[in-house]
Amino acid sequence: MSDNPYYSPEFHGDYQVTSIGGLELEAGGVIPDCRLAYATWGELNAAKDNAILITTYYSGTHQVWRDVYIGEGHALDPSKYFIVAVDQIGSGLSVSPHNADGANADIAASSFPQVRIGDDVVAQERLLREHLGVESLALVTGASMGAQQTYEWAVRFPDKVKRAAPIAGTARVTPHCEIFTNQVIDSMTSDPNFHAGEYKSHTELTEAVKRQALVWAVMGFSTDFFKHEVWRAVGMENKEQFLAFLQGYFTPMDANNLLCQAHKWQGGDVARHTGGDLAAALGRITAKTYVLPIDEDMFFPVRDCAAEQALIPGSELRVVADIIGHFAVLGLNPTYMQQIDQHLGELLALDA
Amino acid sequence: MSDNPYYSPEFHGDYQVTSIGGLELEAGGVIPDCRLAYATWGELNAAKDNAILITTYYSGTHQVWRDVYIGEGHALDPSKYFIVAVDQIGSGLSVSPHNADGANADIAASSFPQVRIGDDVVAQERLLREHLGVESLALVTGASMGAQQTYEWAVRFPDKVKRAAPIAGTARVTPHCEIFTNQVIDSMTSDPNFHAGEYKSHTELTEAVKRQALVWAVMGFSTDFFKHEVWRAVGMENKEQFLAFLQGYFTPMDANNLLCQAHKWQGGDVARHTGGDLAAALGRITAKTYVLPIDEDMFFPVRDCAAEQALIPGSELRVVADIIGHFAVLGLNPTYMQQIDQHLGELLALDA
Repeated sequence: MSDNPYYSPEFHGDYQVTSIGGLELEAGGVIPDCRLAYATWGELNAAKDNAILITTYYSGTHQVWRDVYIGEGHALDPSKYFIVAVDQIGSGLSVSPHNADGANADIAASSFPQVRIGDDVVAQERLLREHLGVESLALVTGASMGAQQTYEWAVRFPDKVKRAAPIAGTARVTPHCEIFTNQVIDSMTSDPNFHAGEYKSHTELTEAVKRQALVWAVMGFSTDFFKHEVWRAVGMENKEQFLAFLQGYFTPMDANNLLCQAHKWQGGDVARHTGGDLAAALGRITAKTYVLPIDEDMFFPVRDCAAEQALIPGSELRVVADIIGHFAVLGLNPTYMQQIDQHLGELLALDA
Repeated sequence: MSDNPYYSPEFHGDYQVTSIGGLELEAGGVIPDCRLAYATWGELNAAKDNAILITTYYSGTHQVWRDVYIGEGHALDPSKYFIVAVDQIGSGLSVSPHNADGANADIAASSFPQVRIGDDVVAQERLLREHLGVESLALVTGASMGAQQTYEWAVRFPDKVKRAAPIAGTARVTPHCEIFTNQVIDSMTSDPNFHAGEYKSHTELTEAVKRQALVWAVMGFSTDFFKHEVWRAVGMENKEQFLAFLQGYFTPMDANNLLCQAHKWQGGDVARHTGGDLAAALGRITAKTYVLPIDEDMFFPVRDCAAEQALIPGSELRVVADIIGHFAVLGLNPTYMQQIDQHLGELLALDA
């Protein structure tokens, strides 16, 4: 275990950590003590039909959902729903390469096994059922890698998911995304300080993680975001300051944690359940589903999301307009949450 | 001077090299012996009004123009026109960091001065006038960085340029492009073998140059290029083979040469002539101009090209459809040249 103060309540606010025990992994191997970090808002009702699950994206945690998406006046309203946001494996809050100790000491750092989206979903289902008394979900939602988990939930556990809202992500990783993720991975593993993942402190990889931020700057924000200097809206005076801000966001993170997530992203594909047949996999979905791509997203373009939506029975495509591009999911643009609230509100109002 | 067999007629076919003498540079400094590589096709007519200039793009030379764009049946027909393709400074064929010797010995490798698009255009004008007897151009065309040079020509020498056809590029570098180019640069300079540009052989930087190829893979080809496996059309069996092919394309190149070009790209801005006023700069253009963006281009999107086109008197926007994205300019798709030939043919048919 390496010390990293970023992965703590001091930086992420209150959350709980619960072990669901050993988790056998899809690609082989096991996490002996699968500890999941999560935060909850609201109360489970007597009928146990008001639970909402939120899944997290690459580099993100429950924090952004708490600060941006959840609250009175939002569709994700804790006065109506019991909302659970589970931090993904490798997030740094749940079991991750940097914090594997005790029973997990053998899977620390470079020894961390390959985790897949399906492993997260299996772990989340167990957490919800065994520890939180939740057997049915009124809604599963998440953005980017959270969308991957949302799709996995809807395909793997169709009877448990009443509604699904994947935001800015796909059910099957596209080849372009796979190449982009290669670049994210390579920006860290090519650093001479990486030492095959066996560096002593995350601070040795500060340059690598900042280089990785530059990769995100190119694909995470639209050409018009930079052209129209939308970074001014977040208090920046020039684009160099914005890039430094973006680097600062990633700097405290652990490279092995990010790599665990990136590899997981690359393996995301619900068609694993159906011998590679995507139409058959998505055809299993019984949840009322709104597919929510962002119009300026460079790596999950609307057309890729629309092609999957067309395979989901009774689903709707709801395109979110945001000049920011993929990183719109951070909620920097006020009109973003208005749209998300409208779509999620209408989805939650549907009988399911 | 470092030995690199790639930069030779063996790999690029016949070309000539002519010195235009010393070239004072816009950003300061001088190239003592400015040698320009170029190839010509056809003959200058008695009226001297049938000359066409082709400018080259990042990593490319006159070669792709000879093989793809020029010939009987094409708009760029040597039986009608005297066609001159000049390899840009830093291309490895013209004076470049890797081949600076003799009078240029002081500007070898990391000592190579900063070159700007305007320097290339000034050098090309001198070559044409002093060595080839060309004072007026029926057409200037080029793609990507070649579009930057085309715009520079039309703004700087409006009386000499009768027609202009910038393909897949902009007159002023966009902030997003600048960040993308930073990533291209960083992928090479961050290599521990780079040694601030004073490596002994380009082969020491093979990994760096291959990493740079991966950056191009993400932004140079559209998401649909990979999704629809368009690489099959160029004889590849899977995308990994295609990525290896792309890496192979860049592998023999010299990092300092590529960096010279990348920095030049970043500085491309015709508004340098008008105190930063882009409308004033583009308003100077008297050439009949067709602006030719590629619909799937991720770093020169149609909207950026259209915004510039709107500032050019009497110009037309002619969008080229190609699923490949930016690298469509390699002419891999047969429908690409059909469109280019149609547009250039119509432009050349206009009175000017």
